[in-house]
Amino acid sequence: MKIAVRNWISFVVFAALLAAFSAAAQSDPLPSWHDTATKKAIVAFVEKVTKKGSPDFVSPAERIATFDNDGTLWPSHPMYTQLAFALDRIRALAPQHPEWKSKQPFKAVLDNDLEALAASGEKGMVELVMASHAGMSTAEFEAIVTDWFDKARHPRFKRRYTELAYQPMLELLAYLRANGFKTFIVSGGGVEFMRPMTEKAYGIPPEQVVGSTIKTKYEVRDGEPVLMRLPAIGFIDDKAGKPVGINEFIGRRPLAAFGNSAGDREMLEWTGAAGGARLMMLVFHDDAQREYAYGPANGLPDTKFGTFPQSLMDEAKKKGWVVISMKDDWKTIFSNN
Amino acid sequence: MKIAVRNWISFVVFAALLAAFSAAAQSDPLPSWHDTATKKAIVAFVEKVTKKGSPDFVSPAERIATFDNDGTLWPSHPMYTQLAFALDRIRALAPQHPEWKSKQPFKAVLDNDLEALAASGEKGMVELVMASHAGMSTAEFEAIVTDWFDKARHPRFKRRYTELAYQPMLELLAYLRANGFKTFIVSGGGVEFMRPMTEKAYGIPPEQVVGSTIKTKYEVRDGEPVLMRLPAIGFIDDKAGKPVGINEFIGRRPLAAFGNSAGDREMLEWTGAAGGARLMMLVFHDDAQREYAYGPANGLPDTKFGTFPQSLMDEAKKKGWVVISMKDDWKTIFSNN
Repeated sequence: MKIAVRNWISFVVFAALLAAFSAAAQSDPLPSWHDTATKKAIVAFVEKVTKKGSPDFVSPAERIATFDNDGTLWPSHPMYTQLAFALDRIRALAPQHPEWKSKQPFKAVLDNDLEALAASGEKGMVELVMASHAGMSTAEFEAIVTDWFDKARHPRFKRRYTELAYQPMLELLAYLRANGFKTFIVSGGGVEFMRPMTEKAYGIPPEQVVGSTIKTKYEVRDGEPVLMRLPAIGFIDDKAGKPVGINEFIGRRPLAAFGNSAGDREMLEWTGAAGGARLMMLVFHDDAQREYAYGPANGLPDTKFGTFPQSLMDEAKKKGWVVISMKDDWKTIFSNN
Repeated sequence: MKIAVRNWISFVVFAALLAAFSAAAQSDPLPSWHDTATKKAIVAFVEKVTKKGSPDFVSPAERIATFDNDGTLWPSHPMYTQLAFALDRIRALAPQHPEWKSKQPFKAVLDNDLEALAASGEKGMVELVMASHAGMSTAEFEAIVTDWFDKARHPRFKRRYTELAYQPMLELLAYLRANGFKTFIVSGGGVEFMRPMTEKAYGIPPEQVVGSTIKTKYEVRDGEPVLMRLPAIGFIDDKAGKPVGINEFIGRRPLAAFGNSAGDREMLEWTGAAGGARLMMLVFHDDAQREYAYGPANGLPDTKFGTFPQSLMDEAKKKGWVVISMKDDWKTIFSNN
């Protein structure tokens, strides 16, 4: 009988411990984050702006969080995903454009000559974007993009691009939403390139995606209204364009902003300068083994795809922006790995 | 005793009737709408797209409803509210601009010479908008607009403009939201003129307001980042611009669209052409007594502020767009009247 009671007590203690442990595990909204100062900064911020009676309390309507995409929510290497799309698209369209065989920058794409491609500069890039992104209706473009996201694979990780969303950032998005935040993407990428995948990849609906645009024109084609994508840039949502885009599309100042490169500097400045409790964070790519490491702030060569200059690191330190070390702060990079 | 029982029965019957009556009253989401075909069309549409298992069921994420503002959610007469603001602003700024006394279109405003003002045409209007809406930061403009909405009164109804939201439309907005719809404004009006008041007047947050824009520029002024409003049109969200704006800002096709003039024609066409169950409605101003009546479709002279040509009425009939008669379909026009 004594043994039975002891066993019963042991069982109760064990069950209680198990329950406590699993409650703790369940209550950690950021399980892919190491328990570092970075994670603590996120949790402390969310608690202080959501706790009623806190001097830093912010009403749910004002809880706007903006996220850059390339390099912040998914990899931007070895090249921006949208550039990979553009190059694939040029290759697919080449049979209809025999003149491309001898015309730059198209020749460089078809020859896989990255040096010549780089030499074509910004003018060349715009030509590639227009040839691959314009001249069809918005519905046709959406179908092309959706099909590409289904078929294309990342050259290193051999997975769909949409499967390479950073697991810790997915947890951060979900944690913010669970705390009444409205999460937006504010990216230099094309808005109509992103919208077909953001709901699935990040849980962010199309109407919460701000990005670069090309002009469209309403036309009635065979009795059917269509929006035609014109070969003309509308808006570039990068650098000083990000606060402009946030103001124009969202019309509220972010409470929290997340980036990873010099292209996000003004968005973080604009967010921080609003005063009150704000959270500004930069994903720092310092994990060559599991993802990538690049840029001057790593003591490494600069890159075209998400440059992180030393001046950005200095500004982050000075202004209290939190730098996320992929190597030290993240337990995992991608889901299921 | 018998009398007591009878009284008790009477009381129970009365209470039951009262309860039934108040439940019916509570369950009518559109109490300011007469029980006409128009109201029935709204309720039937909402029921079929929200009822699980219905062939017309639409997932909540896709339940996008877009509303024009001037003439659809509040009056557009005797002139667009934003024009009243611009004229007041010109008068307020006149002491700093002595040259306006002899320069059109400013002279016309200061002399209250509406004929000369009309003669200045679109070029004159753009000059007025630039002089009254640009040259300050977005924060400064927001403060000016907020102050104006507090002080200005409608010339006929002697109330704040924000108090002139149509009561039946407020009920419609609330009814749609209660049924999982996300309600957006898609107006030719300036987005930064509307955003300071849409939450309060209509329950529509700034990030769900699409409108015309002027260009802004990010600058650091005395160490403080600001967005300066430039004297340059960015985007005109009217007529064929409405589907363009919907696509650019929202990125989804509306399930329901509401307008009142030729400026909304393309928005309704774009919505209806998407196929499936859709609701397109036009507020028809035929109530001179309680609000206004104007336009060719009323057999009345045309107006600059919300023209409703006969061709629009014909298209509405042909395509099954529902025309709301303010006179016959609305019990009340404004709240508390």
